[in-house]
Amino acid sequence: MDIYKSLREEAYEANMEIPRRNLAIYTWGNVSAFDPGKGVFAIKPSGVPYDKLTAESMVVVDLEGAVADSSFNPSSDTETHRVLYREFSSLCGITHTHSPYAVAWAQARRPVPVFGTTHADHGTDEIPCTEIMGTEAVKGDYERETGSLIVDTFRKKSLNPAHTQMVLVAGHGPFAWGKTAAQSVYNAAVLEEVCKMALLTLTLNPQAEPLPDYIIKKHWERKHGPGAYYGQR
Amino acid sequence: MDIYKSLREEAYEANMEIPRRNLAIYTWGNVSAFDPGKGVFAIKPSGVPYDKLTAESMVVVDLEGAVADSSFNPSSDTETHRVLYREFSSLCGITHTHSPYAVAWAQARRPVPVFGTTHADHGTDEIPCTEIMGTEAVKGDYERETGSLIVDTFRKKSLNPAHTQMVLVAGHGPFAWGKTAAQSVYNAAVLEEVCKMALLTLTLNPQAEPLPDYIIKKHWERKHGPGAYYGQR
Amino acid sequence: MDIYKSLREEAYEANMEIPRRNLAIYTWGNVSAFDPGKGVFAIKPSGVPYDKLTAESMVVVDLEGAVADSSFNPSSDTETHRVLYREFSSLCGITHTHSPYAVAWAQARRPVPVFGTTHADHGTDEIPCTEIMGTEAVKGDYERETGSLIVDTFRKKSLNPAHTQMVLVAGHGPFAWGKTAAQSVYNAAVLEEVCKMALLTLTLNPQAEPLPDYIIKKHWERKHGPGAYYGQR
Amino acid sequence: MDIYKSLREEAYEANMEIPRRNLAIYTWGNVSAFDPGKGVFAIKPSGVPYDKLTAESMVVVDLEGAVADSSFNPSSDTETHRVLYREFSSLCGITHTHSPYAVAWAQARRPVPVFGTTHADHGTDEIPCTEIMGTEAVKGDYERETGSLIVDTFRKKSLNPAHTQMVLVAGHGPFAWGKTAAQSVYNAAVLEEVCKMALLTLTLNPQAEPLPDYIIKKHWERKHGPGAYYGQR
Repeated sequence: MDIYKSLREEAYEANMEIPRRNLAIYTWGNVSAFDPGKGVFAIKPSGVPYDKLTAESMVVVDLEGAVADSSFNPSSDTETHRVLYREFSSLCGITHTHSPYAVAWAQARRPVPVFGTTHADHGTDEIPCTEIMGTEAVKGDYERETGSLIVDTFRKKSLNPAHTQMVLVAGHGPFAWGKTAAQSVYNAAVLEEVCKMALLTLTLNPQAEPLPDYIIKKHWERKHGPGAYYGQR
Repeated sequence: MDIYKSLREEAYEANMEIPRRNLAIYTWGNVSAFDPGKGVFAIKPSGVPYDKLTAESMVVVDLEGAVADSSFNPSSDTETHRVLYREFSSLCGITHTHSPYAVAWAQARRPVPVFGTTHADHGTDEIPCTEIMGTEAVKGDYERETGSLIVDTFRKKSLNPAHTQMVLVAGHGPFAWGKTAAQSVYNAAVLEEVCKMALLTLTLNPQAEPLPDYIIKKHWERKHGPGAYYGQR
Repeated sequence: MDIYKSLREEAYEANMEIPRRNLAIYTWGNVSAFDPGKGVFAIKPSGVPYDKLTAESMVVVDLEGAVADSSFNPSSDTETHRVLYREFSSLCGITHTHSPYAVAWAQARRPVPVFGTTHADHGTDEIPCTEIMGTEAVKGDYERETGSLIVDTFRKKSLNPAHTQMVLVAGHGPFAWGKTAAQSVYNAAVLEEVCKMALLTLTLNPQAEPLPDYIIKKHWERKHGPGAYYGQR
Repeated sequence: MDIYKSLREEAYEANMEIPRRNLAIYTWGNVSAFDPGKGVFAIKPSGVPYDKLTAESMVVVDLEGAVADSSFNPSSDTETHRVLYREFSSLCGITHTHSPYAVAWAQARRPVPVFGTTHADHGTDEIPCTEIMGTEAVKGDYERETGSLIVDTFRKKSLNPAHTQMVLVAGHGPFAWGKTAAQSVYNAAVLEEVCKMALLTLTLNPQAEPLPDYIIKKHWERKHGPGAYYGQR
């Protein structure tokens, strides 16, 4: 009996969305699903192509970083996921990809302005971009430091990870999260689409202005505010 | 017996064209079909993914905005559709998407010039872009005001909605319409393709000139004028 | 007994390559196949979507422009095809599309320089772009004048249509041709790919230089010269 | 009994990745697989479309350039592959494509800077671009000279072909290689993705800076260094 069966299945289903949504080629992305009750998360095994993945091969890791149950190595990005679960409460899913438009903004080291309602439907702030990681951090535990860099970026900018559910790591690429693994991969797909739209916007108008605050607020509220009226209730 | 069965089926089929034509990811688009005899339109339920849609789930709404028959909530954009059916006579279908090239022009807040015959085959004027909506309108009934903004834009520019069947809402995205729901989604796909071609044209030649009026007129006439000779008769 | 059966099938098969190769959406492209012995060509019926096409529906037209055998209207571009078959000897296939990168160059009214060997494998000259058609020509027989404009462009530039098998009509889009209908649609796909590569090249280097003549000549010769050694013999 | 059966199958499987990964249209790419024990490589036959390829049709060529066993002509690029196998020891697979973003960099004649970790995961140096080949070399054995041009570029820049497994031939396109044919086509797909990301990066920030050396080194080491921890062991 596998006590992590449903967690592994949740992680597996969310990982398979990466190739379906064209968010990464080969093995260049990973999703984890967190169970706050058990204090563990299930994550993609390292370097395994999506068409060879199974729910059983998802690696279960605890919040101390120990592999709880698996014969596979977890994703090399596991430590980044672990730091985010520890530091950002209320996340139950994290997705990392190398989707090309999000990577382009990360490589250009620019945060993504809120140019339109597609963005505002999913967040009221520009999508932050971290600083380039320093030499000492890279020489240390690199993947753990990647998590810390994201956490520091949110603290410095006073961003709430429950509202801004995506980030660009400078020179690297995107991380997204949510209340479930499925929502985190949804947010990773949103981020890629928003990054594409924003790049095309700047191509047409290099001085494009962000949406006024009152429209940003309205779009966020209609989907996420107390009187939200989007979707079925 | 569902007296709205064929209207719902028309709306359903047109909605399913959105994912087939790659006009939106997830639930980011909606189509409605209007029956002028009954004075009602059928529209996509809010927040339901396309692969879960059925003809039965289409929501029937009357021109006063009351849901005539459904257990689902209609699209959050229903009020925009309603205003357009009331104000622009002769429309029997409306499509709203977040297709990326059209969104980029809307976010850049630029109308799309008539650069070529692909555009002229479908309209003789540049594709209009509204102003950014004002604070008061946003605080009011936002989706209804979006409809009013489109109507005002057409009045100010003296545009005929039977000839110019598409518009960009600044900072938001495209709406398209037509004599049927199917034609409205066709026009939404045309708009996306025309927006892509126009952006690539400006990349090659930032001073690109619009097509001369005599060619625009010719292309429109051969498809839509009294002596039209395109297609089968 | 249909004496045009094989000609119709050739035209049908080549037309179906347009959606397969993503060279046009909806009905925005057409291919014809010419039989020099019979002096007729088979062409797509006007306005019929590709998924409704059949070999039987291909319209057979003679070189005087009379429909030889069909209950369908031929493509509205039939007169352009007819002029090209009359004026450019040795063509047995013509393709017209609205593929987006080729349209962008046509709308920017720029010929496509020979930036690399992909282009040189298929022609030694830049891909010509016509002038914008004049008022009088547009008021006359527009589609016939489109053919004449292409022919005049080749004469003024001393281009050989057996060597340069593609052209951009300014403000409109691409035409390509070849020794068979299949080769003409192949050339239309080559043109789109070459136009995409050339646009991306200018994005990276607005002063990009064309390939030197001695490399252009070499690539053409290895595929098309007397000592050609590409492919199976 | 075909003593080259498994080599042909390896080459066939790798060639079929070209259309699957959208690395070339029609016949515009080829992969070879090298057997160092037998001193021969199997390569795609010239001009044969991928959907007509079979393992049996792969052409076996020895390191002197003689066809060891086949009724087909080998790829016209065979001499380039042969030079690389002779001069760059330890390669057992080579891929050549005309993928559009890699071609754009080759046509712009620019090496690709290491803008991010996607690149650094696969190499620590910018992707080199050769000089344009000179007149005399083109008049000689062109394809052999293409190989020599690549080898000279690596010598001048002191690059190690075991670490930098890809190159752009100026005005032409990409070559990639690896320890197997499958790895070489993987590297060709990586190159295309990295070229796309780098072009989009420059669109957003024409003064984008390369990744600092200490991060480049870290990413390479975690996948390829002595203490590599990526993937399963």
